[in-house]
Amino acid sequence: MSLITLLTDFGGADYFVAAVKGVILSANPAARIVDITHDIPPQDIEAAAFTLLAAYSSFPSETIHVAVVDPGVGSARRPIVMKLAEQYFVGPDNGIFSYVRENHENLGLTAELFHLTNEKYFRQPVSATFHGRDVFAPVAAALSRGVKLTELATKTTDSVRLAPLRPTTAEDGKVTARIIHVDRFGNCITNLTQNDLTAEMIAVATLRVNGKSVKSFRSHFAEAVAGKQKLFAIWGSAGFLEIAATNESAARILKARRGDSVIVSVSP
Amino acid sequence: MSLITLLTDFGGADYFVAAVKGVILSANPAARIVDITHDIPPQDIEAAAFTLLAAYSSFPSETIHVAVVDPGVGSARRPIVMKLAEQYFVGPDNGIFSYVRENHENLGLTAELFHLTNEKYFRQPVSATFHGRDVFAPVAAALSRGVKLTELATKTTDSVRLAPLRPTTAEDGKVTARIIHVDRFGNCITNLTQNDLTAEMIAVATLRVNGKSVKSFRSHFAEAVAGKQKLFAIWGSAGFLEIAATNESAARILKARRGDSVIVSVSP
Amino acid sequence: MSLITLLTDFGGADYFVAAVKGVILSANPAARIVDITHDIPPQDIEAAAFTLLAAYSSFPSETIHVAVVDPGVGSARRPIVMKLAEQYFVGPDNGIFSYVRENHENLGLTAELFHLTNEKYFRQPVSATFHGRDVFAPVAAALSRGVKLTELATKTTDSVRLAPLRPTTAEDGKVTARIIHVDRFGNCITNLTQNDLTAEMIAVATLRVNGKSVKSFRSHFAEAVAGKQKLFAIWGSAGFLEIAATNESAARILKARRGDSVIVSVSP
Repeated sequence: MSLITLLTDFGGADYFVAAVKGVILSANPAARIVDITHDIPPQDIEAAAFTLLAAYSSFPSETIHVAVVDPGVGSARRPIVMKLAEQYFVGPDNGIFSYVRENHENLGLTAELFHLTNEKYFRQPVSATFHGRDVFAPVAAALSRGVKLTELATKTTDSVRLAPLRPTTAEDGKVTARIIHVDRFGNCITNLTQNDLTAEMIAVATLRVNGKSVKSFRSHFAEAVAGKQKLFAIWGSAGFLEIAATNESAARILKARRGDSVIVSVSP
Repeated sequence: MSLITLLTDFGGADYFVAAVKGVILSANPAARIVDITHDIPPQDIEAAAFTLLAAYSSFPSETIHVAVVDPGVGSARRPIVMKLAEQYFVGPDNGIFSYVRENHENLGLTAELFHLTNEKYFRQPVSATFHGRDVFAPVAAALSRGVKLTELATKTTDSVRLAPLRPTTAEDGKVTARIIHVDRFGNCITNLTQNDLTAEMIAVATLRVNGKSVKSFRSHFAEAVAGKQKLFAIWGSAGFLEIAATNESAARILKARRGDSVIVSVSP
Repeated sequence: MSLITLLTDFGGADYFVAAVKGVILSANPAARIVDITHDIPPQDIEAAAFTLLAAYSSFPSETIHVAVVDPGVGSARRPIVMKLAEQYFVGPDNGIFSYVRENHENLGLTAELFHLTNEKYFRQPVSATFHGRDVFAPVAAALSRGVKLTELATKTTDSVRLAPLRPTTAEDGKVTARIIHVDRFGNCITNLTQNDLTAEMIAVATLRVNGKSVKSFRSHFAEAVAGKQKLFAIWGSAGFLEIAATNESAARILKARRGDSVIVSVSP
């Protein structure tokens, strides 16, 4: 249990990330640290929640994920640990683990939640502004050294949740999805999964985003296609339907941002 | 054989790099991973090829370089491994290893080429859009665990090549070089090496780029010089002649971009 | 002694950082490497000095910090090692270790200084433009393998210093501080410490920056406050007073940059 990942909005230019790593390696010189990213937009909890969702299942059992996007640092918001799928998630209780938890619960499984209450394991004195270094790093290091979760924390029953990730289905069956992420290539990741859209539905579906239609579906980016449809949909590597464009940014063409609605109509 | 480098156009803000690392560390928890860079401009195979060329010789024998700039992901382009100088290069067959190979062949040596055909070593199911995670990462992890190349791949005879890196020499002896990279300081790296320009030639050479002349050569950046020549040429750390400017971006002064011609005239 | 940190202005997009890591791992495959940052603005020695100051105390004894922001590379500026607090600092003698040294001396302690003179430990041939790879990386790797400092270097008595970090106090007791860093959230870090401003003084102090006043002090970012004071001061995680703004960039509101004066008036 010595692999620790870091996911923050600290950016790469400051001392924050290094301070977190120094504290972890001071407490456990054998810890392996992997950066998920530090370029979450400042205070953007939803972006952090999505990125963690897309990354965590690639990591082995016993991985400890430290996620710190923490506008409430220093306030009464709780520091927590979530345990599921034999992995640990350490961070503030503000919804950052919400999508991972929802994904796990969609499989009929339950997450265990803990409130970090044992200040003996915090770096003293705890600053008012940097719990990544003073609370979450030393706790993750302790976990990675084999300290029991029950020694570090108290069981709790719930944690803050973001709005659910799943698309909504109206009474008439109409599905409204949304864009949950735009990646560096301009691909627009929707919250539609293969549970929402079967292969048969895909064949006859149209997506509408910001007044523009997407009717073409591809199996890979470079698929040769007739006609000049720039925009197309494709099953992405995080398990969601993505809207992409040939050698262009779909987000730019669609003027799309996270949160924009994706209306699905299936007319055979 | 457990050092693995990563070179991609994935950027630092998404989950892509973390997913690749998670897959490698799941398969080989002892692997050491070093990022070369993930900030290759999207789909820019030439930039990736140059960066790999400039970096690989600093790494020890048995290093496994994973390079993924892969506009053809999911199509028929082959996944390959190149072996040379006791190092391994894993990635798509699209020219990304072309400059390393050319550099090696310039020394009279031969690269060994392999087509990754044993899907048993891929992460299943292989997505259509993320072979970095599903093909190249698990193959690199397998190599780092000591799996034989012949178990993973089939020998092949050729691979896609980019336009040669070397300058061209006309019948009248006139050398036309080009800018192959602009670095973060605005230094313009040309494809001229000490094979193309001897010390004697340098003393009397003029470089012309976009209508501007560079006649001053320096041995180090801070060299004190008479006059007010801002632009100068200097042998750079990747083995190529670079055009630089005192405390300024040479690229900005020259309005230079990669690919721009550098005309060399040597008049004693 | 195998933890090595790196702090440079090399950026993340080029081959520079990878070359440094490759050289270190070639010489010491067991070295642990942690990036502090590579996004110091090009040639900005002060920014590097501050970032190192804010990070180093989070690292364990025997850590080797390699810091390379080096406009004088290739000139007569000396390569040095500083030893203090059981840590090593390897880099150019241009002031980059100045703030760490000042901080240490403020505690009444002395730094040991060494001039790197044993070229046997450099990577040959030493380029004129990349001592990060050719001088500082192999020396750090040698240190991490247990080579004695006296084998690598010659004792020296002084090193280049930047302007002192401490605020100045006029004869009438008026304190003039300055902004020493602006972080990614737009927080303006001043050079005021709890030695300069006691809790009692804080209660009645006003800070003036670029014509704007800051009178509100908070204990944490999310502290609920009456009124609509956007700007507030807070003790930051690096030990300095910071000027911040609620969900905004204080630097943008204040049009503040590093070096701007912060005038402190304490009127009870």
